[in-house]
Amino acid sequence: MSTSDTPAIQDLYSDDFAHCFGCGRNNPVGYQLKSFPEGDEVVARFTPATYHISIPGFVYGGLLASLADCHAMATATAATELAAGRRLGDAPAPRFVTAALRVDYLKPTPLGVELELRGHVTETSEKKAVVAVTISAGGIVTIRAEVVAVRLPKSMERPSH
Amino acid sequence: MSTSDTPAIQDLYSDDFAHCFGCGRNNPVGYQLKSFPEGDEVVARFTPATYHISIPGFVYGGLLASLADCHAMATATAATELAAGRRLGDAPAPRFVTAALRVDYLKPTPLGVELELRGHVTETSEKKAVVAVTISAGGIVTIRAEVVAVRLPKSMERPSH
Repeated sequence: MSTSDTPAIQDLYSDDFAHCFGCGRNNPVGYQLKSFPEGDEVVARFTPATYHISIPGFVYGGLLASLADCHAMATATAATELAAGRRLGDAPAPRFVTAALRVDYLKPTPLGVELELRGHVTETSEKKAVVAVTISAGGIVTIRAEVVAVRLPKSMERPSH
Repeated sequence: MSTSDTPAIQDLYSDDFAHCFGCGRNNPVGYQLKSFPEGDEVVARFTPATYHISIPGFVYGGLLASLADCHAMATATAATELAAGRRLGDAPAPRFVTAALRVDYLKPTPLGVELELRGHVTETSEKKAVVAVTISAGGIVTIRAEVVAVRLPKSMERPSH
């Protein structure tokens, strides 16, 4: 499946759960990360702004952790739907939240180039998924992350009006 | 030492290394986190904006990871200076960068209240420190993080003119 003929996974979240600063279409000042299934992986591309800086020349680590986090939630959503035999978009997409995030900064990530995120699920059950994510810049992997995603608990659901 | 009579640790970083989106005084659109020594700990307070949202009512996890990260770097700086017998501010503060970040989201963090970050070093050597960070909201710890900080490598130093 290519990225051109399918909606982003985040765009399948219900309107009530699409405000996330990292990936919500209903958050006009957020990063609006868009992740797409591609074979057995989920892929996203993102170009940091010049102010997403840490040390001059390099991307802010907190942004990289944020992108890995949102990308992992989308990867968990896609894997859960596919494992249940549903096509993405056939039903409201299940929303995951982060239980744990581990990010290894393998190399400094250069600022000024498009980054590529790739995610795949390494463990999955009905309520939980473990997702491995890499971020690369110019073809070189600079970030490796492992993210534990859990299905949105009822306690976090609130009426949104 | 109280927070009122001492500069923030981040304000002791040299001008060349004070652009960080999370805590740099030279980044006008960043979070500008300010961390202060307080006894054996380092403490910061931060109130997320309304748009720093994940699920409605709760703080975006990527912001929490970002704050923990910057706070840990400041904690490493303070501990290194104190271990070397220097007072903070007596010399340019050493700048650390993140090698690894582990964040456990213990509970959802409510949006709309001031958060308190507390950090302390659990392991330290000349070039590396391991920092434990908690984030609490209304006195309840919602985030526990462990961050590996390393001294800024020469390869990341660039002339800024």
